[in-house]
Amino acid sequence: MRFNLADEKLPTAWFNVLPRLAEPMAPPLHPGTREPVGPDDLTPLFPMALIEQEMSPSPWIDIPGEVLDVLRLWRPTPLVRAVRLEKALGTSARIYYKDESGSPAGSHKPNTAVAQAFYNHAEGIKRLTTETGAGQWGTALAFACAQYGIECKVYMVRTSFDSKPYRRVIMETWGAQCVPSPVDDPSSPGSLGLAITDAVRDAATRPDSHYALGSVLNHVLLHQTVIGLETREQLAMAGETRPDVLIAPCGGGSNLGGLALPFVEDADVRLVAVEPSSCPTLTEGRFDYDFGDSAGMTPLLPMYTLGHDFMPPTIHAGGLRYHGDAPIISHLVKTGRMEAIAYPQGKVFEAARMFANVEGRLAAPEAAHGIRAAIDEALAAKETGEERVIVFNFCGHGFLDLAAYDDFNHGRLVDA
Amino acid sequence: MRFNLADEKLPTAWFNVLPRLAEPMAPPLHPGTREPVGPDDLTPLFPMALIEQEMSPSPWIDIPGEVLDVLRLWRPTPLVRAVRLEKALGTSARIYYKDESGSPAGSHKPNTAVAQAFYNHAEGIKRLTTETGAGQWGTALAFACAQYGIECKVYMVRTSFDSKPYRRVIMETWGAQCVPSPVDDPSSPGSLGLAITDAVRDAATRPDSHYALGSVLNHVLLHQTVIGLETREQLAMAGETRPDVLIAPCGGGSNLGGLALPFVEDADVRLVAVEPSSCPTLTEGRFDYDFGDSAGMTPLLPMYTLGHDFMPPTIHAGGLRYHGDAPIISHLVKTGRMEAIAYPQGKVFEAARMFANVEGRLAAPEAAHGIRAAIDEALAAKETGEERVIVFNFCGHGFLDLAAYDDFNHGRLVDA
Repeated sequence: MRFNLADEKLPTAWFNVLPRLAEPMAPPLHPGTREPVGPDDLTPLFPMALIEQEMSPSPWIDIPGEVLDVLRLWRPTPLVRAVRLEKALGTSARIYYKDESGSPAGSHKPNTAVAQAFYNHAEGIKRLTTETGAGQWGTALAFACAQYGIECKVYMVRTSFDSKPYRRVIMETWGAQCVPSPVDDPSSPGSLGLAITDAVRDAATRPDSHYALGSVLNHVLLHQTVIGLETREQLAMAGETRPDVLIAPCGGGSNLGGLALPFVEDADVRLVAVEPSSCPTLTEGRFDYDFGDSAGMTPLLPMYTLGHDFMPPTIHAGGLRYHGDAPIISHLVKTGRMEAIAYPQGKVFEAARMFANVEGRLAAPEAAHGIRAAIDEALAAKETGEERVIVFNFCGHGFLDLAAYDDFNHGRLVDA
Repeated sequence: MRFNLADEKLPTAWFNVLPRLAEPMAPPLHPGTREPVGPDDLTPLFPMALIEQEMSPSPWIDIPGEVLDVLRLWRPTPLVRAVRLEKALGTSARIYYKDESGSPAGSHKPNTAVAQAFYNHAEGIKRLTTETGAGQWGTALAFACAQYGIECKVYMVRTSFDSKPYRRVIMETWGAQCVPSPVDDPSSPGSLGLAITDAVRDAATRPDSHYALGSVLNHVLLHQTVIGLETREQLAMAGETRPDVLIAPCGGGSNLGGLALPFVEDADVRLVAVEPSSCPTLTEGRFDYDFGDSAGMTPLLPMYTLGHDFMPPTIHAGGLRYHGDAPIISHLVKTGRMEAIAYPQGKVFEAARMFANVEGRLAAPEAAHGIRAAIDEALAAKETGEERVIVFNFCGHGFLDLAAYDDFNHGRLVDA
């Protein structure tokens, strides 16, 4: 059962969680001086509009019409009630998923890519650099840059570059250039931290270029709040007064933030982050200042971290292989507003296969983490006979991640 | 701009074109006796419900509730106005596409796969065999069989099996078995005709098994008419009194039939079939009785054909590599109700890349044929300043066909 919002219900303002936080967040620090970062420190990498959004006290920020025009290609996205999954589980819970997989790039990532490309274009920037893990973000930025005629260079984590050539092909189809990272060590499998270093170094040394980040930063999560804003409207369409629990996979935190932040003030709605056991930032990391990249070029961010030199194993959910987490997400977990849970990938793929069978949707390995947690919430509700309303973010499809399914189907998946 | 039908507007009956044809179609003939085929000749391969549909005089045929329950996972599908494409072309035409790419298998094929699996299941069949070219149909049948707990074996044209391993992985994820065809000649690249022979032979020699075909036959086109029925409603939502021209790629004819058949009686609506120049069945074939497969095991069908021993080149639009065409489509072309046009694949991929850039949608190579023709219709309307209303079927996404885009992007595509 799908709940489609009318086109005119596309949100026209983003929800800014910063002025709504019960406790203020600690500021990012300059990597050299260890003093709070000011706007001037960020101008070599970001346009002023995004720097302002990063620190804005406004509760709502208008979405420019030129951004809405592009978002309308696939938004609003459907909220789907997973009736056949409920039946297969025999649960008393009602399970909904927000389907972000129908975007051009096949994930939630274009929601912010389009906004970032627009603001850079508006300030005269001709070229953007970025990193990408599994390829979802690089694909999204390539699409967004094509909309505004901006050049795009993507540094892709080498292990994904080698195992997912199709991601490169999509980026190239949209006119971007994609190279494996780290650029100076072909023997390294790479990591998001290393690729960020490559991309930041490139942008910082070219005056025509800026850098774009696909997660972690406040303005990225801000742009993703269209997900949660639409979900709230759609739950009302479905006759639900409120969700009991909102669930999303968490790598850097952008799809989770997008779904959850608009519900932060609804005290009785549980918010759940799901991460891989092999990269357990929220569940086993420490809360501290740390660099966003491996080389220590970025500002120090107050976040849960496994250490900026942490090298995660090459699990299939490449988008969740990050040593840190968004400061906003970290803050919510630290202050007890958000829960975190971790799963090994074997249990994640079990859930993904079940979902593919009963709901027909092939999930990206990242998205499958949300499915796993939603199923377990539904089974818990079944135990107690509760009518729990569960919503999870189906943040991307798996058509480009089939090697992972092949490994799982043939018993070759390492259950890390 | 997207036009979403409400869930309750999902058609509940299929549109049967047979009783509406101005001239009756010639009957299929038995391959041995060359007499018209009767229901008994087909019972080793098909359930009685489908045999009846193949010859039914009823203008409407109810869709079973168990089929609707599964179709609702992704239907109704959106009709999208390609505003950004119109702008890029500077055309006075209005261009719409029916987006069938959002199904579980990523194409229109599940529309009939689900119905076929259901009817076989209802008559106690435990196992289905089929062939697949590019893999779209095999994927769809694997999904459908998973819904009813039927075993599924897919014979995949070897050249696609080798070049598109991801298709096999999806089929296996849904529990199907997929093997390369022809099974008895590993040196042959294979063809749809040869794969049909393999699948029919398998089903004919096992009492627990039936055979399922993804295109060509009347009941297959019947099941696809949900596409055109929804499109009619959605055009009305968009404020269009009628389309001027309906366009769809044509391999066996199922996605074209699905879009076009409900408009056959609207005399002022042009219907256009688009095929590859390298397999020009409608544009250069002869109208004659011919076998559906290569070995001559199937009934003789009255259709345009390149000869059942025709071996098409290994172009990227594997789903359009078929020597024949649906008898219904052939009949409409022969009687002048439908036009046909052929394009070399270079021009097709040019259109696909433009579409990916401005509308954000990555088309399957098959679907890209429709885009090419729609663009040319829009450019023709621009010449004359006409307000032409153009609708094409976006019958599948290209996330599993990226090797083709890679060849095109790097100038390696043979422009056959």
